[in-house]
Amino acid sequence: MRDRAITERAELDRLLDDNFLAHVGMADDQGNVVVIPTAVVRDGDSVLVHGSTGSGWMRRAAAGQPVCLTVTDLSGIIVARTAFENSLRYRSAVLFGSFTRLAEPDVRRALDLFTEHLIPGRTSEVRPNHRREVAATMVLSMPIGPWSMKTSADWPTDAPDDVAGRAWAGVIPFDARRLGDPLPAPDLRPGIPVPGSVRAMAALTRR
Amino acid sequence: MRDRAITERAELDRLLDDNFLAHVGMADDQGNVVVIPTAVVRDGDSVLVHGSTGSGWMRRAAAGQPVCLTVTDLSGIIVARTAFENSLRYRSAVLFGSFTRLAEPDVRRALDLFTEHLIPGRTSEVRPNHRREVAATMVLSMPIGPWSMKTSADWPTDAPDDVAGRAWAGVIPFDARRLGDPLPAPDLRPGIPVPGSVRAMAALTRR
Repeated sequence: MRDRAITERAELDRLLDDNFLAHVGMADDQGNVVVIPTAVVRDGDSVLVHGSTGSGWMRRAAAGQPVCLTVTDLSGIIVARTAFENSLRYRSAVLFGSFTRLAEPDVRRALDLFTEHLIPGRTSEVRPNHRREVAATMVLSMPIGPWSMKTSADWPTDAPDDVAGRAWAGVIPFDARRLGDPLPAPDLRPGIPVPGSVRAMAALTRR
Repeated sequence: MRDRAITERAELDRLLDDNFLAHVGMADDQGNVVVIPTAVVRDGDSVLVHGSTGSGWMRRAAAGQPVCLTVTDLSGIIVARTAFENSLRYRSAVLFGSFTRLAEPDVRRALDLFTEHLIPGRTSEVRPNHRREVAATMVLSMPIGPWSMKTSADWPTDAPDDVAGRAWAGVIPFDARRLGDPLPAPDLRPGIPVPGSVRAMAALTRR
């Protein structure tokens, strides 16, 4: 992919805040690299991941194993005048560091951060987490330390000979943040309306 | 994320064929794990990645360094009746192995596979790749060996007490494959119509 480096921290924060998904790489017990998809949320100068206290990769990460956390946002297909110059419109950041496990009071606050990142406004519509739910959850925090970020060119970068030719060029955008109509759960009891948080998201095109 | 394992190879192929993006993890020269986003295409019983012959991570991968290649497809937000049960609708596969570099005649065929994976029908609308373009490109192939795949539950899995309560539950789907209207390049010469391949994609909702 043709790309350029981004060094502004604000751009990194924007990428993290626009995305739910990270890929975390680390060595397993045999030394093999494993890359795991997981939800991510930024908490100021740290990134948080969470999961079950029984998760193997999270237990290894909680022990301080070095990790690489990558967030990638694809926003379109760059259609060039030549097959060679086709590419993807993207932003991507790679963060290096290691995680530490949060203790209980911080876990509650962190779970609210995840909820609000996924569905803004949702925490006030549902019951607070039970103590056993909090106890069953591991939240890991990694300070934002060394990182690098890249973004694609916005448009095809064909050679002058090709620009002068007859082929079309442009971008097919992904409307990746265009959300569909909310689907009620099969076991939803009758008479429960779609809540404000979900209505607000369905109305959103986030980028 | 609440999930279940998938063992059918056809499901793995479907996930790979529905997606452009993989995250490849491997150790760098210092032994640190690095996770790199890259385009991927399935070629029968192998997966291919490509890039510049100057790419550092690809040169290490071409040398046979063990890698983990992960493909994740998010398709919605699972809105549960409790914050604790919220999650993401996803499919994800993790493939282990190592790459070998393709030689020139195979590189040409592989580049066409990438083009057709990204923009079906495009190869017949543009000039063939120049010899120097092929020479500047490294294509790596990894046989599909050990892999594992997971998918989320389709719907919230709240406890009976919560199902009996007043909170809404359901899914906000991502229309991730709904493509926007094609955007012409700023330097597009006047009078060049949107080609058939791009019109066909813009009309598509791929899932």
